[in-house]
Amino acid sequence: MTRVVVTVMPREGVLDPQGQAVQGALGRLGFAGVTDVRLGRRIELELDGPDPRAAAQEMCERLLANALIEDFSIDLED
Amino acid sequence: MTRVVVTVMPREGVLDPQGQAVQGALGRLGFAGVTDVRLGRRIELELDGPDPRAAAQEMCERLLANALIEDFSIDLED
Repeated sequence: MTRVVVTVMPREGVLDPQGQAVQGALGRLGFAGVTDVRLGRRIELELDGPDPRAAAQEMCERLLANALIEDFSIDLED
Repeated sequence: MTRVVVTVMPREGVLDPQGQAVQGALGRLGFAGVTDVRLGRRIELELDGPDPRAAAQEMCERLLANALIEDFSIDLED
């Protein structure tokens, strides 16, 4: 069993409307000095199998990330 | 300017319907050996100010996380 952490973030240069919404909401709540917000996903997977990194890579390509607008990274724990 | 990374995940023991949906979809795509999936958010903030960690803590409590069902962690970079 391997714990795999997949991080999916909007690509550099791609509009991030969720991040912009959070930035706007923080400003309206009175938080000053928030110059940028990017919002992405963290996916923690428990995987059985011989090559969890390769499996996670394929999962990202087929389901977990949208390569047109998102970058992903894969980290193995244990 | 400090880059602050906030990670928000469903609390242990709290139902995670998004994670369950991803786990089901991975199974239907033919991925075997996926024994658990938890899905959360990664929020990257650029903050100006004297105490970015305290600011991020308050942002989590007021907007970024729902303490009833989510845990958050704060990491400073730079």
